[in-house]
Amino acid sequence: MYKINDNYLKLPGSYLFSTIGKKVAAYTAEHPEKSIIRLGIGDVTQPLAPAILTAMHKAVDEMGCAETFHGYAPDLGYEFLRNAIAEGDYRVRGTDIKADEIFVSDGAKCDSGNIQEIFSLDNKIAVCDPVYPVYVDTNAMAGRTGIYDPKTEMWSNVIYMPCLAENDFAPELPKEEPDMIYLCFPNNPTGSTITKEQLQTWVDYANRVGAIIIYDAAYEAYISEENVPHTIYECEGARTCAIELKSFSKNAGFTGVRLGYTVIPKELKCGDVSLHALWARRHGTKYNGAPYIIQRAGEAVYSEEGKAQLREQVAYYMNNARTIRESLKDAGYTVSGGVNAPYIWLKTPENMTSWQFFDYLLETAGVVGTPGSGFGPSGEGYFRLTAFGTHENTLAALERIKKM
Amino acid sequence: MYKINDNYLKLPGSYLFSTIGKKVAAYTAEHPEKSIIRLGIGDVTQPLAPAILTAMHKAVDEMGCAETFHGYAPDLGYEFLRNAIAEGDYRVRGTDIKADEIFVSDGAKCDSGNIQEIFSLDNKIAVCDPVYPVYVDTNAMAGRTGIYDPKTEMWSNVIYMPCLAENDFAPELPKEEPDMIYLCFPNNPTGSTITKEQLQTWVDYANRVGAIIIYDAAYEAYISEENVPHTIYECEGARTCAIELKSFSKNAGFTGVRLGYTVIPKELKCGDVSLHALWARRHGTKYNGAPYIIQRAGEAVYSEEGKAQLREQVAYYMNNARTIRESLKDAGYTVSGGVNAPYIWLKTPENMTSWQFFDYLLETAGVVGTPGSGFGPSGEGYFRLTAFGTHENTLAALERIKKM
Repeated sequence: MYKINDNYLKLPGSYLFSTIGKKVAAYTAEHPEKSIIRLGIGDVTQPLAPAILTAMHKAVDEMGCAETFHGYAPDLGYEFLRNAIAEGDYRVRGTDIKADEIFVSDGAKCDSGNIQEIFSLDNKIAVCDPVYPVYVDTNAMAGRTGIYDPKTEMWSNVIYMPCLAENDFAPELPKEEPDMIYLCFPNNPTGSTITKEQLQTWVDYANRVGAIIIYDAAYEAYISEENVPHTIYECEGARTCAIELKSFSKNAGFTGVRLGYTVIPKELKCGDVSLHALWARRHGTKYNGAPYIIQRAGEAVYSEEGKAQLREQVAYYMNNARTIRESLKDAGYTVSGGVNAPYIWLKTPENMTSWQFFDYLLETAGVVGTPGSGFGPSGEGYFRLTAFGTHENTLAALERIKKM
Repeated sequence: MYKINDNYLKLPGSYLFSTIGKKVAAYTAEHPEKSIIRLGIGDVTQPLAPAILTAMHKAVDEMGCAETFHGYAPDLGYEFLRNAIAEGDYRVRGTDIKADEIFVSDGAKCDSGNIQEIFSLDNKIAVCDPVYPVYVDTNAMAGRTGIYDPKTEMWSNVIYMPCLAENDFAPELPKEEPDMIYLCFPNNPTGSTITKEQLQTWVDYANRVGAIIIYDAAYEAYISEENVPHTIYECEGARTCAIELKSFSKNAGFTGVRLGYTVIPKELKCGDVSLHALWARRHGTKYNGAPYIIQRAGEAVYSEEGKAQLREQVAYYMNNARTIRESLKDAGYTVSGGVNAPYIWLKTPENMTSWQFFDYLLETAGVVGTPGSGFGPSGEGYFRLTAFGTHENTLAALERIKKM
């Protein structure tokens, strides 16, 4: 008789954004007359940039012609895209990442969920708290996190690094030594960042204790301030301790297009085993490449027109972020984030729990946000709003919130 | 100090098709003047059908317009596609699979590699021998297969079901009871099929011993004979013991487009745990949906024009299959397959090993095929050719083979 993977049964509830989706669907079914504004899930609203559309139409045409048809893609992704990434995201920043250290994928969510597979189940993970749920949930599914305590909302075998107003939402080096450290800057959900010097401390620490850093740089395009690192490879020694994950979802609006990549430097070794080789094996065996059309769309992100158009798109969302931040401050809320990230993190008023505020906001203002506690116990009492709505909806949502 | 997943180190060599790719690349680098015809990897060569191109162009346009832009897709896939699949692949065959039992993905390779994650590591798998390498390799990576013996080319904890000329390349019920049974019909690599009655025996067996069947129906579109089941759900009782995997790669030429789906009936339960719920959780947590544009392409596969155009495409490849089969027979080879599948399975001549014949064919005829032994020990002495080349190349390859 076959048995299931019991680790799944240890998971509390369902995936955060599925829960929110169901809650909102139930509410709109009951109140079909209410207009809902969604500033919850980090989904973009602006259409794809013209340079990207042109590239995709061209690629579709190529697929319709025997001479230019493309079947299975190369294991690591097409060279045209890996070269564009190496140049556009790394060489221009003076970091030395080569095209063959880049693995193209269908998105950073998959990569951040799958990357743990190449590591032993005995490793202990450390995560920021609050944190993007995928890191912990996928480790829980693999059986790496011990037992979940519904009272503390913590797993017995996870090192939590609280990120609170008190420490400026930046994690401190953990007391207990972790094997795998998940870091995400600019941060989802808090919208905070750390300086290059602070990140260097983490790189030095990881190299010293023999930990691996999984660095999620999905929101890099939103960095507006100096001295905030755009990639972990700006730090010395990162090539021997860090894997970097990147997404096209937020810099290019690819949430429904699906493209991302993972960087594993060739020097990254555990004993004499190359992590690059392990991930290449995983990629070759369990994955079959991102669609040709989508990889061409990704290439267009790095063209001159693409870059100019996407700068405008990011500026559009960051204008929303500024509007949310300033309006909420004016309305008396305590807010952070929104300067180097498209997320605004606010303290719930009147000691409401995160879910209480979620319901209150939905019922009173018809605005959907994300409860901070959904990202971990230290997120309790906080709430996330995203800048990814349209400007009109963002203004309307804030008008409603001010009237609450 | 972090540790890696040691199971990866137990894997022999690299993924079969990566090895072939490297061997061919090395040969062409040494002999740039030689023209190579690839009938190895099962990659299609015909351009996408016009109905699909039209759907994709339209979807690209939609992504360029705020009103019709699509961000994150629904967890299970868009309803328009799941409805089209439920109707076009199941309802028309009189099988009762509902749209919400279908999980859209980026391909059957990923699904067939990932599906084992929802099962316990204690389960014992049974596979046909020879077999598509992904089933065994992904179970090996997860740690379910024991130790690999390079002499026998077998894993200590896998039940192998030999498929040889002697049993018409159809597996027999194993003597030892497995927990998970991987079946693929029409078969990759042998091109063989089994009848509905034979498949019913497997379904009855699985229900009796409490095993789960992972049924890979990627080549269903190539079935030309009566009484060969198009889906396992044609068999009574399959809803309580079988998961079905489907691909758009071979029926619609989507190897570079990437689309597939997995069917998990709601009745499929281990004790009181729904496998549908487990896979939904896996999908929601570790995956972010196939691109909107690609899902629209998938929908076009089921349109009237799409179906007519794809019938022609399949007929084109099956004409190749017939040509290969007949020509090789004429040339004195022992061949099977190629009637309900795009694969021709041949006995290597003069007791050559599969890899010896690979080298011989590459060096003498400039034709690339796939060594049978790459699919498992019982594939030794066999060789796979695919019907996915152009007709011109297929004819040219056969001319060269005849002259060997």
